[in-house]
Amino acid sequence: MDYRPASQDAQFILFEVLDASGQLLPLKGLAEADPDLQRQVLEEAAKFVAEVVAPLNAAGDHLGCRFEAGAVTTPPGFAQAYKSFWEAGWPALSCRPEHGGQGLLWVLEGVLYEWLSAANHGWTMAPGLLHGAYECLARSGSDELKAAYLDKIASGEWLATMCLSEAHAGSDLGLVRTRATPQPDGSFHVSGSKIFISGGEHDLTDNIVHLVLARLPDAPPGPKGLSLLLVPKVLADGRRNEVYCDRIEEKMGLHGSPTCAMRFDDAAGWLVGEPGRGLNAMFVMMNAARLHVALQGIGLLDAAWQKADAYARERRQMRAPGSRDAPPDLIVQHPAIRRILDTQRSWVDGGRVLAYQTGLELDIAKHHPEDSRRVQAQRWCELVTPVLKAAFTEQAFHGASECLQVFGGHGYIREWGIEQVVRDSRVTMIYEGTNEIQAIDLLVRKVLPDGGRGMSALLEDLERGLDKSNAPAAEMLASCARLRSLTSKLVGVAEAHVELPFWVAGDYLRAVALVLLGWAWTRIGDAANAQDARWQEPGDAFRHWIFPEFKMRLEMIDKQLTLKTPQ
Amino acid sequence: MDYRPASQDAQFILFEVLDASGQLLPLKGLAEADPDLQRQVLEEAAKFVAEVVAPLNAAGDHLGCRFEAGAVTTPPGFAQAYKSFWEAGWPALSCRPEHGGQGLLWVLEGVLYEWLSAANHGWTMAPGLLHGAYECLARSGSDELKAAYLDKIASGEWLATMCLSEAHAGSDLGLVRTRATPQPDGSFHVSGSKIFISGGEHDLTDNIVHLVLARLPDAPPGPKGLSLLLVPKVLADGRRNEVYCDRIEEKMGLHGSPTCAMRFDDAAGWLVGEPGRGLNAMFVMMNAARLHVALQGIGLLDAAWQKADAYARERRQMRAPGSRDAPPDLIVQHPAIRRILDTQRSWVDGGRVLAYQTGLELDIAKHHPEDSRRVQAQRWCELVTPVLKAAFTEQAFHGASECLQVFGGHGYIREWGIEQVVRDSRVTMIYEGTNEIQAIDLLVRKVLPDGGRGMSALLEDLERGLDKSNAPAAEMLASCARLRSLTSKLVGVAEAHVELPFWVAGDYLRAVALVLLGWAWTRIGDAANAQDARWQEPGDAFRHWIFPEFKMRLEMIDKQLTLKTPQ
Repeated sequence: MDYRPASQDAQFILFEVLDASGQLLPLKGLAEADPDLQRQVLEEAAKFVAEVVAPLNAAGDHLGCRFEAGAVTTPPGFAQAYKSFWEAGWPALSCRPEHGGQGLLWVLEGVLYEWLSAANHGWTMAPGLLHGAYECLARSGSDELKAAYLDKIASGEWLATMCLSEAHAGSDLGLVRTRATPQPDGSFHVSGSKIFISGGEHDLTDNIVHLVLARLPDAPPGPKGLSLLLVPKVLADGRRNEVYCDRIEEKMGLHGSPTCAMRFDDAAGWLVGEPGRGLNAMFVMMNAARLHVALQGIGLLDAAWQKADAYARERRQMRAPGSRDAPPDLIVQHPAIRRILDTQRSWVDGGRVLAYQTGLELDIAKHHPEDSRRVQAQRWCELVTPVLKAAFTEQAFHGASECLQVFGGHGYIREWGIEQVVRDSRVTMIYEGTNEIQAIDLLVRKVLPDGGRGMSALLEDLERGLDKSNAPAAEMLASCARLRSLTSKLVGVAEAHVELPFWVAGDYLRAVALVLLGWAWTRIGDAANAQDARWQEPGDAFRHWIFPEFKMRLEMIDKQLTLKTPQ
Repeated sequence: MDYRPASQDAQFILFEVLDASGQLLPLKGLAEADPDLQRQVLEEAAKFVAEVVAPLNAAGDHLGCRFEAGAVTTPPGFAQAYKSFWEAGWPALSCRPEHGGQGLLWVLEGVLYEWLSAANHGWTMAPGLLHGAYECLARSGSDELKAAYLDKIASGEWLATMCLSEAHAGSDLGLVRTRATPQPDGSFHVSGSKIFISGGEHDLTDNIVHLVLARLPDAPPGPKGLSLLLVPKVLADGRRNEVYCDRIEEKMGLHGSPTCAMRFDDAAGWLVGEPGRGLNAMFVMMNAARLHVALQGIGLLDAAWQKADAYARERRQMRAPGSRDAPPDLIVQHPAIRRILDTQRSWVDGGRVLAYQTGLELDIAKHHPEDSRRVQAQRWCELVTPVLKAAFTEQAFHGASECLQVFGGHGYIREWGIEQVVRDSRVTMIYEGTNEIQAIDLLVRKVLPDGGRGMSALLEDLERGLDKSNAPAAEMLASCARLRSLTSKLVGVAEAHVELPFWVAGDYLRAVALVLLGWAWTRIGDAANAQDARWQEPGDAFRHWIFPEFKMRLEMIDKQLTLKTPQ
């Protein structure tokens, strides 16, 4: 079965659980932020995803992209679907009106991409990279570059790539060797080899705009020596630039997206932003990019859940315990299956609350009239984004594997499409910063350097909405307190024990993720009807099967504190 | 890199940690059980696996098996390697001398298959199925059937299958519809369709012996109506039997093993054992078969660890915390990577202790002169085997995924072979009884029915070797006590709350697995040099990163007890 976005669920979370309209009321900059239009956009998006993009998913995996003599052919139907997508204006949803965009909320783009990824992760990689390139160019590009490229990227008529990794430089971009040599006319000649370039070459658009990390002559070694250059596949005068795709990788999954090894041979390029500030030009959009990946995780897990749930409601095997029906019973009646389904549902629903709220905070951080609210929103984005990226990509893979288990042997064969979700989702734990790097980013780069003050303030933001007379909320209040106290301990020893935070960063991230998810479920509990099984069963699953990990993680960290910092 | 069995590690665990020779001394039936011969067999096995089987693994995945007009072609080199394998006598290692076997310990066969699976899971599926068929026929076959088939199966000259599943009958074999109709000459005509038949058709041997679950006329519905029939591909007179392979499945992995949809059209077959006792004929070998799968998990995890460990010792990215070397450092110096590697190593080493001990217990249960020791061994096998099957196949998949993470983006592409391990290993969580069924088997079918007495006795067996003056052993003693007390509570409520054990069976199995692994690590601790990082680092990883889950599982079960059985 193909993925079908549950638009009503998204609207419930956005407008009832999170009161997006209320939160955005002060944001005068977003004139079109009226709820009716937003609901209508979501309904239309759901339709497009279900009718145009989802049906291409299985063939995209089976046939994949083909490489021949430097050219890449995408799977059947991909190019036509992409043309419909950009012509209908979807890429420009949240782009600014002055660049031809519709200026709508970031969160609507977020929801759209969650659904697209769920429906067809491979296809979605191509337009998914537009938004970073758009932001990067809009903020740091010269007027000439903007005039030549920005509208085409905003509309999606031209696609874009981020050319960062090299064979020896993955997580450590400071090792990048690609060179950019200045030319008399102000342009550069870019030379070097890049790997793992999603959409580096394809047949979806007439031009592809590469943003390439490279080193100018005499640049210092390491990350500070890196500059960002715009290198188009086709030059303004119609000539082909010296940019070549040498191969596409054979991957575990994501066969619908060509992962290209690119070669730049004195290709013409133009500097984006200042020399030596290449990483800064990219890192301004890091939170949005990571949130996109978190939403991919949520979407893929929802896709896996939809398949497993449907199968469990039609497959019969054995008598369920306590059943009085004639056997065999539907497998959805078996507790082991029920538990798998409710647990994944719980991650998806709670994840949506967190990711959509983070999407709102992205706009609040930019557009809110009050300084203090902007600062608060920026803090939320900085601290919560790496947590969502790591926790929901991990859950996408592990949860999809659980959903595969629902199918028994049928899950392992291609026919049902569930094993594709497992394979496709695996990459999300790696790209846009591996999950290990997200954990270090959270604890070592963000929580510890300000003595835990930012994290403590985030926990206060969560606590503010919790009513201790309500049992689940009271448990979350106690958990916030435990996390705050543990954070203080870590701050206290980190300077003298520099290795310690690196050992426990993953546990710390999980603990924060579980508290955030707990907060999300108290929010759903406040908004949903207490008798509605749709929300109550995954809420119970959170408390019974997911949250117990929180205590385990704190104890693992505590043990390291005791061992490595003897009194 | 290809897998290389660490024969010295296996010998250390078998002869020093477990004192296999001492344990087997009373087993007069196993004349050849002398340690020098056993060590020599292991050295030769390691050589064969590394030189003949491992090099075919990557191509086996990429090219896979091909199906054309009813015939299956295995990947290049597979048939030649299989011929060398059986001609060298490896399949018959533990078969009885009267059937042409060498009569060696079961555990040596176990170690051999652990390594074979690690080296080339797809190839190993074909001979892996021999052993069950051999046992089944040796125990339940008529003299005529044995005379015609047993020696050829023991030697591996002919391969065998188990034809159980049908499209609508997977975990629930009681739904099997294939029919066997008696013929005047005492044979049967077998008709029906089977799916997921590993090695149902191939080019490795001249004949294939199918053991088929089917229903005789007037058999009652459900599992008691099932009989087992031997249906050869080629009849004694050289004619082709009416057995057809209709297709092979496209799978997530294990491409080197053809998973066949088989059709029997009035095929000639002969009854194995009594009518209506088909499941019993098969279930006598269930513990050995499940232990084989547990060993596949251990082997695959070791293969993933070998790849990741080698990569981490040659890849450099970023400065490691506290490092004073010139960056970039080897990634093995980064705590997040170190932790992944040590944790998987800990599962593999501890798993070997448990699986090899279980292998010894299989022989002890058959051959020990004392009744009480045989009973004890049988109890160990019954209770420990489902735990190892579930825990180590789950760890194979999740741990291989962790090892993939060590490679960053390179892990997701085919080149390094690590993603193949993730894909191949996934099936082990499903076949030979899904892991959910293993958990129900343990708690609902074995622990609860005798009021927890068997489990309590098993815990006493574990406790006996633990010295409470040693801290890790003392922790295991306390954990055994907690598990015993929880088991009593479950026994106390199970009758009145029939659904409850099914909700928590998975947690219970994990708790038992963690106590067993803890016991294994105390055994390694007793035998290894306390200064030897080879054993100390994974031992620490067990205590720091693996065992904390034990407490979490007990608390999850306790919570269900509290919720579902209000006082």
